[in-house]
Amino acid sequence: MPITLTTDFGDAGPFVGVMKAMIRRYAPDAEITDLTHHIAPCMPAEAGFWLSRSYRYFPAGSVHVAVVDPGVGTARAVLACAWDGHLFLAPDNGILPMIVPPGTPMHRLSDAWAARQDWPQPSRTFHGRDIFAPLAAMLASGKALPADIGPACQPMPPAAAAAVRNADGTLTGCVVAIDTWGNLISNIDAALLRTLPAPRVTIAGRSLRLADTYGSAQPGDLLALVNSFDVLEIACREGHAAQRLGVRHGERVSVNAGG
Amino acid sequence: MPITLTTDFGDAGPFVGVMKAMIRRYAPDAEITDLTHHIAPCMPAEAGFWLSRSYRYFPAGSVHVAVVDPGVGTARAVLACAWDGHLFLAPDNGILPMIVPPGTPMHRLSDAWAARQDWPQPSRTFHGRDIFAPLAAMLASGKALPADIGPACQPMPPAAAAAVRNADGTLTGCVVAIDTWGNLISNIDAALLRTLPAPRVTIAGRSLRLADTYGSAQPGDLLALVNSFDVLEIACREGHAAQRLGVRHGERVSVNAGG
Amino acid sequence: MPITLTTDFGDAGPFVGVMKAMIRRYAPDAEITDLTHHIAPCMPAEAGFWLSRSYRYFPAGSVHVAVVDPGVGTARAVLACAWDGHLFLAPDNGILPMIVPPGTPMHRLSDAWAARQDWPQPSRTFHGRDIFAPLAAMLASGKALPADIGPACQPMPPAAAAAVRNADGTLTGCVVAIDTWGNLISNIDAALLRTLPAPRVTIAGRSLRLADTYGSAQPGDLLALVNSFDVLEIACREGHAAQRLGVRHGERVSVNAGG
Repeated sequence: MPITLTTDFGDAGPFVGVMKAMIRRYAPDAEITDLTHHIAPCMPAEAGFWLSRSYRYFPAGSVHVAVVDPGVGTARAVLACAWDGHLFLAPDNGILPMIVPPGTPMHRLSDAWAARQDWPQPSRTFHGRDIFAPLAAMLASGKALPADIGPACQPMPPAAAAAVRNADGTLTGCVVAIDTWGNLISNIDAALLRTLPAPRVTIAGRSLRLADTYGSAQPGDLLALVNSFDVLEIACREGHAAQRLGVRHGERVSVNAGG
Repeated sequence: MPITLTTDFGDAGPFVGVMKAMIRRYAPDAEITDLTHHIAPCMPAEAGFWLSRSYRYFPAGSVHVAVVDPGVGTARAVLACAWDGHLFLAPDNGILPMIVPPGTPMHRLSDAWAARQDWPQPSRTFHGRDIFAPLAAMLASGKALPADIGPACQPMPPAAAAAVRNADGTLTGCVVAIDTWGNLISNIDAALLRTLPAPRVTIAGRSLRLADTYGSAQPGDLLALVNSFDVLEIACREGHAAQRLGVRHGERVSVNAGG
Repeated sequence: MPITLTTDFGDAGPFVGVMKAMIRRYAPDAEITDLTHHIAPCMPAEAGFWLSRSYRYFPAGSVHVAVVDPGVGTARAVLACAWDGHLFLAPDNGILPMIVPPGTPMHRLSDAWAARQDWPQPSRTFHGRDIFAPLAAMLASGKALPADIGPACQPMPPAAAAAVRNADGTLTGCVVAIDTWGNLISNIDAALLRTLPAPRVTIAGRSLRLADTYGSAQPGDLLALVNSFDVLEIACREGHAAQRLGVRHGERVSVNAGG
């Protein structure tokens, strides 16, 4: 029973290890894969984006847990849903609506149901260990279904607006993730991009034509390309595009038809 | 047979991977969990603190290995002990006495016993691979008990002094860990804190009241709270308390009764 | 069937996790160990060096995959070979010739053979997931041998020149890796070093005698030693040698007989 973890816990401290221990307490055979623990802090949009593009590489029946949770300890809900043969679990802060289509049935964990489980008393600040871990284990081992854990509910809106086609045919999206090499990853899907002839990409006042792969640019040059997760990416060959352009998460990216 | 690893090896280089390979050579079925490999260099106190607060989430019979070992290659001892159904293994630099109570029987690895094992000749600088890995594997698989490996001994004192109650009833402790988000984690236990009415926390000249959770503070504000490992923590909501206050490991934290 | 991963993927984003998912799709029982994902970007020499010194700690039959691949998406070849009971897989950029001796038979993946497998259509930028993962899984599970995947070929030369003995008996090598603590790791083997009486090490204008272990130096002092992977290393006790000397990968290191 595969479980993936996507968090902003980082490296320092035993947070990830202890969360895994609690998953295995309730599902000893869980096969846990770290997707990433380096989501930018307080950036649910990045978690939702990466999960939406990554879950399909895992086997059907996997449980995908995202814990990017600035609202931990407040009244924010914990949501679970099933979609495309996979199960998803996250706080109610716009992560899940970036992964599953509108209208997908969602359930929020009820205090009453949680109180009936043999879980430890939850802390106020580490629900990854106290709530998400045992709940993920129960979903993964088939001991609970999303519909069991509490009432159906309406989730918060997506943490990042989807890319849109404007009235004049141009596309507008934003930077949803920045990877280890400083590549700027947008939410503009390749399928949308292919509707424009000779697309020209604008970001931070720079205009770029679409390249095939990193090797098509000269070292140090900026380039735009469709990346391996099928979205528009702005990169700098052998360089760091985010630093080079001075841009961050949320930066506007637009595309229009080339002339 | 679960084994946890707590080191300051960091990410660069194959140190953690090679240590796991050597554990599996002697215990092929070991289930190895990384607790953290980002203990601050030369900071056994941080390793001892995190292990003391984390081991109980793992199953009884787990072996917990800490390798924060500035004295590697010198005559410092390697210690093993059993406590609370778990086994612990660390260099003799104050880590274990932060985890187990005074008087817990400890044994130091003897050269004679090590020489009788089928271990490779140890290097002078990587005992994690050459000594801790095979020894952890033998402890985890029941092929050795702490009492087998060498004589009972008296360990070095704890790497960080425990928090104390002063004659006037106030509490004094220190920062023992700094997490990924810059939160300052003290060694002042929640049970001790609860003996004071309306506790007021002082650190680096700032005085803070106790809050319930991160969400109780305004973005950018400092707060003190009991964290998920049941100790006093000083945080900055959506900020980095360590940078904000300019403090490091060992910084003094005191608490007195509010007025 | 053990598989090790050595990449420059870093921590941000789901790259490592997705690569593991794809390995397990084709080899569900693979036991995957991360060697390191923090190879310096565009530095195949560091990957080749660490693998050459690490593979032997893993069991015979292991598959070792290195993905440090600035040429991804260009016509560069993917190479596999068997050596010393292990299998190795890497792009053709000088990694494998740092691990295996000259003349070891190497095979390059042919497009025709790859097209006959049930692999997804590869992207232009993430061959770790699309090509190296399924191929490693097939090699690990015995479904393919290096000789099956394509024609024998001549690899590119090693990514870093080997250390040499000069006509006057002195040794010249270079820094091939820098570890988490800033230690400078050279490609000068201990066996070579032992041919010189009282060796004296020169790097960045500094001359150092050989010490036994880190503890032999005073805190803050530079030292040279034979490290746990049996090569010459330049370190700074309780400090960061790379920053202290201002040197990087490729820096020249020389050794001559002491007077």
